[in-house]
Amino acid sequence: MAAEASRTSEARRDAVFGRWVVFSPARSRRPTDLNPGAAAAAGAPKPSCPFCQGRESECAPEIFRVPAPPDASPWRIRVIENLYPALRRDAEPPAPEEAGEGEATPGERAVVGFGFHDVVIETPRHDVRLWDLDAAGVGDVLLAYARRVRQLMEHPAVKYVQVFKNHGASAGASMAHSHSQMLGTPFVPPSVTTRLNCMKEVFERLGKCSLCEFQSKDILVSETHNFSAIVPFAASYPFEIWIIPRQHSSYFHEIDKDMALDLGSLLRTMLAKLSKQLNDPPFNFMIHSAPFGVSSSCLPYTHWFLQIVPQLSLIGGFEIGSGCYINPVFPEDAAKILRELGC
Amino acid sequence: MAAEASRTSEARRDAVFGRWVVFSPARSRRPTDLNPGAAAAAGAPKPSCPFCQGRESECAPEIFRVPAPPDASPWRIRVIENLYPALRRDAEPPAPEEAGEGEATPGERAVVGFGFHDVVIETPRHDVRLWDLDAAGVGDVLLAYARRVRQLMEHPAVKYVQVFKNHGASAGASMAHSHSQMLGTPFVPPSVTTRLNCMKEVFERLGKCSLCEFQSKDILVSETHNFSAIVPFAASYPFEIWIIPRQHSSYFHEIDKDMALDLGSLLRTMLAKLSKQLNDPPFNFMIHSAPFGVSSSCLPYTHWFLQIVPQLSLIGGFEIGSGCYINPVFPEDAAKILRELGC
Repeated sequence: MAAEASRTSEARRDAVFGRWVVFSPARSRRPTDLNPGAAAAAGAPKPSCPFCQGRESECAPEIFRVPAPPDASPWRIRVIENLYPALRRDAEPPAPEEAGEGEATPGERAVVGFGFHDVVIETPRHDVRLWDLDAAGVGDVLLAYARRVRQLMEHPAVKYVQVFKNHGASAGASMAHSHSQMLGTPFVPPSVTTRLNCMKEVFERLGKCSLCEFQSKDILVSETHNFSAIVPFAASYPFEIWIIPRQHSSYFHEIDKDMALDLGSLLRTMLAKLSKQLNDPPFNFMIHSAPFGVSSSCLPYTHWFLQIVPQLSLIGGFEIGSGCYINPVFPEDAAKILRELGC
Repeated sequence: MAAEASRTSEARRDAVFGRWVVFSPARSRRPTDLNPGAAAAAGAPKPSCPFCQGRESECAPEIFRVPAPPDASPWRIRVIENLYPALRRDAEPPAPEEAGEGEATPGERAVVGFGFHDVVIETPRHDVRLWDLDAAGVGDVLLAYARRVRQLMEHPAVKYVQVFKNHGASAGASMAHSHSQMLGTPFVPPSVTTRLNCMKEVFERLGKCSLCEFQSKDILVSETHNFSAIVPFAASYPFEIWIIPRQHSSYFHEIDKDMALDLGSLLRTMLAKLSKQLNDPPFNFMIHSAPFGVSSSCLPYTHWFLQIVPQLSLIGGFEIGSGCYINPVFPEDAAKILRELGC
């Protein structure tokens, strides 16, 4: 066994829950400008924030930037490497046969912690939140996600890219400056497998995609030409929101400019509503897409969506043990409140 | 749809992740003597604590008590109803055919929020923590769990009982006085289904129970005649511990007095080690057992265990979205630290 100091990242799957876990000693070394337990302190630019314009040299390497119009700041969005990556792009990727065989065979398994961990800096300004941008600005952030996902898809060992945003210290953010992240993993993560299995079963037994229709207008918050925002029928968290493409579509990264503008508009409205209703809560959002290279027979039941989760309640032993959440707010009630809130 | 004020508990399963969620408006009304975000303030008896000796009349009805020796306090352990239950024992239980058919058919589903939500007060004293009791005292708490689980098993609509303990506000405890809880649910919770499926697959393909042997002595923390305490090979949380019966056994509630004493001894040592190493962290423990009435063909691969999870790191969008955890501490390193710690 390697000595503690020399350990590098490793991913392991257990033989009881079948869950992948990433072991990453480097993660514990990352600094924070947020106080755990407190909400993110929005406000004045911090002289120490490496995500601010002018401090680009303090960051890990840039992957690409979205330029700003002439005479403005030198960039609007930057996609960079994470300085404290959970998975390492310089590690040896698992051999294709190892990855393939390992996914299929149950039981304990360990692979080198290869993967990509990137950061999307959504604005050069420290005091701007994602929903302070206009619809086009949020749309450009979404297009930057999609562009980077397409790049990662080219790597044969990357099986999935989890795009996510943490806002507020208690939602897992370590930096106050508005940013999102994505992790390209050499395995299909546990919740993705569960989701695909469930949607497959629904499709095979009921003949429909789980997300192409929903039963009741009572859970609808808002609709655009291309997207519906709902509080899902069995929301795990109070005021959880799902934004779902109205046309069946398996992959988020195939989003085009018009769709991104439309989604940007709806996403900023939903974040503004949550901020207003819940007093700027810590929150996470996650994009749920299909793993790369699934067979064409999976496409009819995989339907991508964006999930927003305000962090209002603590997770206790019941939730950790059973995987069952207790939600004090009925989805129809949360949807009504959010629907009627002007934003 | 019922008006908001008149809503009663309901359990729903979604068609995307296949997860059960309990909707319980009553839960949001429960009081707390703990400050969310802060660790549990152990210390002097609180004049306002209904779990303290002498204030029994302020609690929900008692189910049973474990008496103390003559001339001592009138009880050592009380099992009572939860005053703010997530599931209601007075609701109409789902009909057997409804529960059976519904478990098998995928897709959205809702049932009345029938179930049991009980509290185990582990000591009459406000200033005593579970691991301050002696091994026999902890063993008696475990026997009280098992006795109540056996009672709940008699109800035909109860499919599973999740036994758990929350210690500290950020681990979900609302009361500082040492207690545990259990929820008897009319469905098999999501993680239980995942666990059984995974262990079944391992058994069918590798011909062994996932928990009857473990590969490496490096992850062992301590062993007694009947139990092993390990940091699991793919621990989701830093310093997570599993206590596993060394003899194959599917059901926790079949534990006898000798086993309970042995487990009580090991559990209190592990809790003391975590408290010492991590400075009295918030934590949860959960007992993972088999659902009631599984067919005898499931018994060879279901093996109960107790999971202890210190709450050290925040859960962010990556974990919520992917179900994959990032753990900065390798299990072998955590096990070595805990093994060498005198307690």
